[in-house]
Amino acid sequence: MESFRLINLQKKKSKLVIGLMSGTSLDGVDCVLCSIKNSAFKTEVKQINFITHPFPNRLKEILLENSIPHKGNVTDITKLNFLLSFVYVDAIKKLIRKSKINMKEIDLIGSHGQTIQHLPGKEKYFNYKFGSTLQIGDPSIIAKLTGVTTIGDFRTGDMALGGEGAPLVPYFDYIMLMSKKNNRALLNVGGISNITILKKNGKPNDILAFDTGPGNILIDSLSKKMFNADYDKDGEFAEKGNINEKLMKDLIRKDNFILSKPPKSTGREYYNEKFIQPLLNKFNRLPRYDLVATITNFTAYAVYRNYELFVKNKVKIDKLYVSGGGARNKFLLKQLQYYFGKSVKVFNIEKIGISSDAKEAICFAVLANETISGNPSNLPKVTGAKRKTILGKICLP
Amino acid sequence: MESFRLINLQKKKSKLVIGLMSGTSLDGVDCVLCSIKNSAFKTEVKQINFITHPFPNRLKEILLENSIPHKGNVTDITKLNFLLSFVYVDAIKKLIRKSKINMKEIDLIGSHGQTIQHLPGKEKYFNYKFGSTLQIGDPSIIAKLTGVTTIGDFRTGDMALGGEGAPLVPYFDYIMLMSKKNNRALLNVGGISNITILKKNGKPNDILAFDTGPGNILIDSLSKKMFNADYDKDGEFAEKGNINEKLMKDLIRKDNFILSKPPKSTGREYYNEKFIQPLLNKFNRLPRYDLVATITNFTAYAVYRNYELFVKNKVKIDKLYVSGGGARNKFLLKQLQYYFGKSVKVFNIEKIGISSDAKEAICFAVLANETISGNPSNLPKVTGAKRKTILGKICLP
Repeated sequence: MESFRLINLQKKKSKLVIGLMSGTSLDGVDCVLCSIKNSAFKTEVKQINFITHPFPNRLKEILLENSIPHKGNVTDITKLNFLLSFVYVDAIKKLIRKSKINMKEIDLIGSHGQTIQHLPGKEKYFNYKFGSTLQIGDPSIIAKLTGVTTIGDFRTGDMALGGEGAPLVPYFDYIMLMSKKNNRALLNVGGISNITILKKNGKPNDILAFDTGPGNILIDSLSKKMFNADYDKDGEFAEKGNINEKLMKDLIRKDNFILSKPPKSTGREYYNEKFIQPLLNKFNRLPRYDLVATITNFTAYAVYRNYELFVKNKVKIDKLYVSGGGARNKFLLKQLQYYFGKSVKVFNIEKIGISSDAKEAICFAVLANETISGNPSNLPKVTGAKRKTILGKICLP
Repeated sequence: MESFRLINLQKKKSKLVIGLMSGTSLDGVDCVLCSIKNSAFKTEVKQINFITHPFPNRLKEILLENSIPHKGNVTDITKLNFLLSFVYVDAIKKLIRKSKINMKEIDLIGSHGQTIQHLPGKEKYFNYKFGSTLQIGDPSIIAKLTGVTTIGDFRTGDMALGGEGAPLVPYFDYIMLMSKKNNRALLNVGGISNITILKKNGKPNDILAFDTGPGNILIDSLSKKMFNADYDKDGEFAEKGNINEKLMKDLIRKDNFILSKPPKSTGREYYNEKFIQPLLNKFNRLPRYDLVATITNFTAYAVYRNYELFVKNKVKIDKLYVSGGGARNKFLLKQLQYYFGKSVKVFNIEKIGISSDAKEAICFAVLANETISGNPSNLPKVTGAKRKTILGKICLP
């Protein structure tokens, strides 16, 4: 009988697991193959192969249209939910070919899906008060087309219990990256930036983690507008500019996410055209390099300001490890080091043996392994959920 | 470890299962409690209690807005996906209270969800050709809030394999209602009508099943427009009218679903305002009772015409059992008997011991039991899928 498949999977000491992450940048899906031994604190992960599979042309635009609050439409969303899974399956097949292994050898797939709306703030709707979120890229389609058990939709379960459904990476950070010697901060700079603070030898209740605000989302948007580039490669545009103090002040005044208390999470619903365009109109005489430099500096500032407000008096961090696309932005790293000062060393996360690009995809491979192992993997103190719970929906092939 | 929960569930001979169905009528959720023994052909179901839990005021309108092709928006859909689950959980709690049992005694929940878009026709989108569907009312929210393992999203897996994801009820009909003596047809008249033809002692490949066209969807819409009633109670409006032959002709000419070959499925995407309003404009002098009588007759005609075109030369049915809200429409039953003639007896399905109202909800309780038992429950010949597969996503509490 079929559910013995799950038991056999659970019993298997070492598994080949694929992790999929498609983030707020909307330009492709990160796809990692790794071997995972054991679970929870005993988890050992070895990255075997990693690819970023680009989305087809024009998909980003259509996803964007369907991510704007109160925009999009049911037909697009229905079709995109299927389409993305087909794209994910293509990514998986490409990774498998590149790795010269057979799909049948894969034990498990963990897929984050594509967030097209994240509304963590609890609002009244009819007689209920709740936050909500929507990830598309149906995991059962992935399971049926690959023949591999797939876990997806990790966020809804936590939100059902009153949590924000985010961030989920801190659990991974906690079981994989906590140090016995140093207070570590893990900063992932994807579209949005999120930080995890791991007190040395800490307990789950010691973990602080939340979104700090923009990641590459504003930098990418400016790079597009000003240079018709998808992003600021290595921070080169920013490097050529000067930080404009007046624009910095306006950005800080405009932002009301940085000051809001954790647990908190954000997304394109907040950091979008409406956020940036009025300031661009006002500062339209500023050299475009200065605009990118200033917005990159603001991104670093947002991280530090959050640290100052919500972390520093509880945990003084020793080291800050940066991952995600933003880890390659040298100007951003420089500004982070500037804000955090001499007492905190800023590194690319590769320093501690994790691929900066693959980190989030690895996280969803590990979270899938936790689900199949029967381990709850939300951190209630971090997400605000009422209790620990096993995340994700199990989809049989 | 948690997945032993599934094994224990699988091993349990008799389970208390709740089935949830919210259909195209968009006015509430049918919620049944039953005990289920064994699985597949050995399945024994005993209905313990049944309720229809009405949706909150105004929810129907918002669901309707978000079901119209190319309408709706991502924020509403995201919130409705959560909201519906809360409403479902309220329905479950009400049923539990009424049944005087404890939630902890419930073993399993099967939930169909609310279809807000069903696009079974394969169309090219980017470089992929596929049909798609979207059910909302997230099953993992139901699992977390009830503490009961929940299976939902039964249609996507079949569609991933090229099927229409519908109809799913024929599998239930096949394992539960096939006769050794008679060729049976099971007709469910919900918003849409679907029929299952069970040849006596048939094999899965003998089953014919498909949507025949409108169920109550056009009758309800006319009852609203003409009498400000939610539906035509017992067919009383129709009973007072005469069938108008000219309108019948126009309806038949207008409809291009009836003539299309199975496998086929339809929904509000086709039978909606655009379908009916031009004819109402043309026939605006007809007495309103005649309009309802004619549209009800057309609904019966659609069933029979499908039988004539796609069934009769393969299986000559002996008995037709009607379920769903339409089974209470006496005029509809009379017209069905008229079209099918003396050789076919038309009954309410209660005649063979199944509650007419609860049938679809029971079906999803049984389908959840099939999933947890590891049994594939799509019928590839009926849905058009490439292969049999286990349906649904498993959501742990």
